[in-house]
Amino acid sequence: MERLENIRLSEGGDSLIILDQTKLPGEVCFTELKSREELVEAIRKLRVRGAPAIGIAAAYGYYLCAREDMDKEDFLSRMDDAERLLASSRPTAVNLFWALSRMRAVLRRSAFRPRGEILQLLLNEAYAIHEEDISANLNISEYGLSLLKDGACVLTHCNAGPLATSRYGTALGPILLAKERGMNISVFADETRPLLQGARLTAFELMNAGVDVTLICDNMAGQVMKEGKIDAVFIGCDRAAANGDAANKIGSSSLAVLAKHYGIPFYMFAPLSTVDMDTPCGDMIRIEQRDPTEVTELYFAERMAPAGVKVYNPAFDVVDHELITGIVTEEGVITAPFEENFKAAFDKKKQRTVTNNA
Amino acid sequence: MERLENIRLSEGGDSLIILDQTKLPGEVCFTELKSREELVEAIRKLRVRGAPAIGIAAAYGYYLCAREDMDKEDFLSRMDDAERLLASSRPTAVNLFWALSRMRAVLRRSAFRPRGEILQLLLNEAYAIHEEDISANLNISEYGLSLLKDGACVLTHCNAGPLATSRYGTALGPILLAKERGMNISVFADETRPLLQGARLTAFELMNAGVDVTLICDNMAGQVMKEGKIDAVFIGCDRAAANGDAANKIGSSSLAVLAKHYGIPFYMFAPLSTVDMDTPCGDMIRIEQRDPTEVTELYFAERMAPAGVKVYNPAFDVVDHELITGIVTEEGVITAPFEENFKAAFDKKKQRTVTNNA
Repeated sequence: MERLENIRLSEGGDSLIILDQTKLPGEVCFTELKSREELVEAIRKLRVRGAPAIGIAAAYGYYLCAREDMDKEDFLSRMDDAERLLASSRPTAVNLFWALSRMRAVLRRSAFRPRGEILQLLLNEAYAIHEEDISANLNISEYGLSLLKDGACVLTHCNAGPLATSRYGTALGPILLAKERGMNISVFADETRPLLQGARLTAFELMNAGVDVTLICDNMAGQVMKEGKIDAVFIGCDRAAANGDAANKIGSSSLAVLAKHYGIPFYMFAPLSTVDMDTPCGDMIRIEQRDPTEVTELYFAERMAPAGVKVYNPAFDVVDHELITGIVTEEGVITAPFEENFKAAFDKKKQRTVTNNA
Repeated sequence: MERLENIRLSEGGDSLIILDQTKLPGEVCFTELKSREELVEAIRKLRVRGAPAIGIAAAYGYYLCAREDMDKEDFLSRMDDAERLLASSRPTAVNLFWALSRMRAVLRRSAFRPRGEILQLLLNEAYAIHEEDISANLNISEYGLSLLKDGACVLTHCNAGPLATSRYGTALGPILLAKERGMNISVFADETRPLLQGARLTAFELMNAGVDVTLICDNMAGQVMKEGKIDAVFIGCDRAAANGDAANKIGSSSLAVLAKHYGIPFYMFAPLSTVDMDTPCGDMIRIEQRDPTEVTELYFAERMAPAGVKVYNPAFDVVDHELITGIVTEEGVITAPFEENFKAAFDKKKQRTVTNNA
């Protein structure tokens, strides 16, 4: 697979160059972010997305702000403003706050030094955050791969691949690693409404790597589990609380309920930078509410998945009678035992029809 | 609410006039179907959809075929061909086959009569199927309403309203009836990918009737249940097997698993014409596989929900730690008890970092 560097500093070190994820899969487009406002916009609009990638972008962004404001009198208070601005871009992924707090700690520790040295230390810290993520992802991918047998089929949701992180990615890492080692792992990818990261990004990344991937709508995940097609669910994580409750793209929690129902292991993938020991449980995680137009208007004017992607598109599924409280018919609410009660309803209807015609 | 007759014979009785459901909510467009091929296309492309509506359309279609072929020598064998053609339009909803078999029975019973009389009997049977559906829907709506308290909130999926049936609809019937009686029932409507019947049709019908409806993506249904917003799930049904297993729009089965997990009653709505006692269980129901482009390409060029519809759009949800098999980090696969094992992982990482730096 051709490596697409999703985040890097420009040659001159004065801007951030990102692969604009909102343009994929139609267009591979790199955008240069020069101001802090452009950076915040890029995070908010998901041009850069994925918890680890947001952390890395914010670290470089903090460095760029320092570079711009270094010569100003009120440097330190300006950096507090910059941190607040960057932190306001998205509320859920903890990596953003974690990366900013690491950068702030370096600034605080070295505040007595010459500004040029401070700048170099901040740049080093941003690089360290980036490199640690690459190294963590490789470890995560190895651990994840140890959970899979050759020939396994994995269900994933949203995108936790190289675009969302760095290099291998988290939840997609084991799959990409398996491919490099000649194993056959296939994948069902939820399209992930409203912004279709699964259709646009996961399908794109896996097809690029030659992985056998099939695209489904989110509401089809339960059906492929029920059909016995899925050996494990692998998804990313935006913030894990200390008790293990873990936030991730909307729909993740439902997948976990479904996986439990069908007896399928459910794994989430996260570098420890995503684990927030200061948040005791999931109820304390702030869930971002986004713009209604994401739901009511279309993201792309036309095609929203890579050309040639495999698709599984069942129009219906079957609800097991044990899960149905009642079936409401014109002869009343029919409950279990259904067959017996259906027969009674048909008899009742027949009786009524006979009486009416009499 | 202005009543939109979704299916009716033309004044001259020689064509079927349908409200083209693929054009909603942008356009209220009535289309005249003159040939059997046009009718089959309309059912296949979901211009007419919803199990009861398909049955009604097929009954009128059978009558129109008889009218066209009445004067032909090989009338009876032509009618067998017509039935096969109409039956081929969609495989899952049983009402299609049920309606056609009622029409065939009338034809067989009256084959010795003059052709003009046969035609009149077929027309009467089609009217009867239509009228019985209206009357069944009213009963279903009353029974469904008896399950709701004033102020309740219902989650629905796909569209089982007047468009899918006749008059009140099935799953939406109790809600429309409640509105007429001054009760306050609110609704969360799944958009229902891939063809967005929830966003386009359910939101449209309920807003037209002045019902408080909020649109969500399919993968958000579990979240609104978890938040305690939902008192009951009300959905339609395309075919119920004798044991109570019931096919409905893809995603229905997952909703049932979620409802069970969160302790929410899950009701399906069906006239008895949708109950197929010849199918012993759900495994025997053929599930239609539809065109991949429904998933990969967009249905509408722009807006896909009525203007002004309320939307709930959380970007994330939180997976309860009890549902997570493991969280894969760079220090290994962390399982329950999570807090303890997270701490051990952080210690291990710290230890490793210290060793590396030594």
